[in-house]
Amino acid sequence: MGRVLTPHDIHAAMTAQKPGVVVRVAVDALGGDRAPEVVVEGALEAAGELLHVLLVGPEDTLRDLLPAGGSPHIEIVPATEKIGSGDEPVGAVRGRPQSSLVVAARLVADGRADAFVSMGNTGAALAAGLLHVHRIKGVLRPALCTLLPAVPLPVVFLDAGANAEVRPESLRQFAILGQVFAQEVLGIDKPSVGLLSIGEEPTKGTQVVIEAHRLMAADPQINFFGNVEGRDLTRHTVDVIVADGFSGNVALKVFEGTARTIVGEIRNAVLGSLRAKIGAAIMAPDLKRIGAALDPEQYGGAYLLGLRRPMIVGHGSSHAQGVANGIRTASRGVTSDLLPAIARRLGAGAE
Amino acid sequence: MGRVLTPHDIHAAMTAQKPGVVVRVAVDALGGDRAPEVVVEGALEAAGELLHVLLVGPEDTLRDLLPAGGSPHIEIVPATEKIGSGDEPVGAVRGRPQSSLVVAARLVADGRADAFVSMGNTGAALAAGLLHVHRIKGVLRPALCTLLPAVPLPVVFLDAGANAEVRPESLRQFAILGQVFAQEVLGIDKPSVGLLSIGEEPTKGTQVVIEAHRLMAADPQINFFGNVEGRDLTRHTVDVIVADGFSGNVALKVFEGTARTIVGEIRNAVLGSLRAKIGAAIMAPDLKRIGAALDPEQYGGAYLLGLRRPMIVGHGSSHAQGVANGIRTASRGVTSDLLPAIARRLGAGAE
Repeated sequence: MGRVLTPHDIHAAMTAQKPGVVVRVAVDALGGDRAPEVVVEGALEAAGELLHVLLVGPEDTLRDLLPAGGSPHIEIVPATEKIGSGDEPVGAVRGRPQSSLVVAARLVADGRADAFVSMGNTGAALAAGLLHVHRIKGVLRPALCTLLPAVPLPVVFLDAGANAEVRPESLRQFAILGQVFAQEVLGIDKPSVGLLSIGEEPTKGTQVVIEAHRLMAADPQINFFGNVEGRDLTRHTVDVIVADGFSGNVALKVFEGTARTIVGEIRNAVLGSLRAKIGAAIMAPDLKRIGAALDPEQYGGAYLLGLRRPMIVGHGSSHAQGVANGIRTASRGVTSDLLPAIARRLGAGAE
Repeated sequence: MGRVLTPHDIHAAMTAQKPGVVVRVAVDALGGDRAPEVVVEGALEAAGELLHVLLVGPEDTLRDLLPAGGSPHIEIVPATEKIGSGDEPVGAVRGRPQSSLVVAARLVADGRADAFVSMGNTGAALAAGLLHVHRIKGVLRPALCTLLPAVPLPVVFLDAGANAEVRPESLRQFAILGQVFAQEVLGIDKPSVGLLSIGEEPTKGTQVVIEAHRLMAADPQINFFGNVEGRDLTRHTVDVIVADGFSGNVALKVFEGTARTIVGEIRNAVLGSLRAKIGAAIMAPDLKRIGAALDPEQYGGAYLLGLRRPMIVGHGSSHAQGVANGIRTASRGVTSDLLPAIARRLGAGAE
């Protein structure tokens, strides 16, 4: 695969299917603010000859939402319980083995599905992944890996919130996870990696970040650029940005909130006056293009990177298109060399 | 003072002068990317009968930049050395006693000036503040306190980067520092305080944040809302947001970078086609208003809150208006009850 050049290429790289290979994706039908309706809609959009969906949730409800007679590429797997977005992750996963999320994770663990998708509770998905799907041998902690819509090209960003506290060695591993992701999924030849801190100098940041900088700089496996700052999230200073899950999650939500506030302000301005309405109507295609470039749904969710099978968690607010892209991204995770490459690079051999 | 209601009110509250009181502000003429030219320009804009500026830097250069015969409200104080934005703060402050920044801080320490302003190295300003101006008794760590242009009203945000690592007790103090700032400078009656974390639940975040949550919730002095998230930076969920200086600095720079990227994308769209140019020309007043609302220069820099005198550090990229607003903000810090109120609230009595 050549180096990706446009956001469109990236979308294609993230969601491409491999000819001749049938992939089975388990989908948590009760995850997300708009479940199960948009999940079923997204599954219908994504499912096909090469992409079978195992839709996990209450049988009758799901059957009613599917077209009469069902869909040839969608199978319903019954699950009666639900884990909500506010539930305490570990307790919920242990206490509700019949929840759609845990049943979906177990389908992957049992080999009945190749990958997992949920728009629900990220912490619970991580807990289910750790408990049932397990880490790749050698990986200390899985990281939540997402694409940030930077200009001109998205940036691979991890950890977006799986680990509130990490050791420097985990940050070093995140650099390798992100680098392999950029290589194997996006086709970037020698991806550069930056470490999120509060100044360019290696001495800036917390003790954990300073030590992680040292480990990354000393690791010949890592094409290390050095520290980057918050403003580099929306530029393309580096291909991959590594952060601890606390400041990473803060950064991601500040990005989303700021984009939403500015777009909202422009919309208010437009509604506020006839003059602006006319101007906005003329500018509409350009504003729409910018809005689309900033839309997190286009890439279909974040990878829980470091688990033995592809696990994708999407925004709770996802629409059908986001769900469909999440399912395609999971499928792509199966047919790419991503997970074997992680296993090779983190020094514990093949699974 | 009544409760502030608009961004315009906030600007007025931040920069108001008190009738009949002459304030002397020491200004580091060599701080910032555009120094000394824009610093002199900003000083000329801000100086007046009630606001005397002590402009600290190379005498001949500054005299050449001032109008022939000087300005009646500006005094040049000679300083031969400079501390650059990349210099290691503590070493530079100790090693360059004749630098414009250190001389300006010493003018405040010696009582020749009432407040300090620099658009230069924030870390060095903090080091000079700690070494020469000193903390208010009872304050563990000063915090960098800034206003974020949220919608509909700005949010008081601290620590924006003075302390990469903090103890929970410092975060509790930051809540009080921010609350007093919102009361005494912005005139907000009972400001609400949120703690930046990665989930609403008190159990979310790092150990330091979880413990700080407990301390804040238990403190009757603090009008504690609970945890807030990255997306609340650009809303007005609370009047004051408290963060550790690492994720606070990351958050601030993500905000600035995202705003700049989106505005840049709109500008590119506008330059890209005649159609969009016409639309943008029609929308121009609205886009300009939104741009102005997001402009960090309108509030004139950040307070190093917790020091015995008002110290303001502004963006290195500030233009003359930002410098002038920084000087006015420093002056307002002198005539308000801000610092005495901090001394009273942090339990160590008057200075």
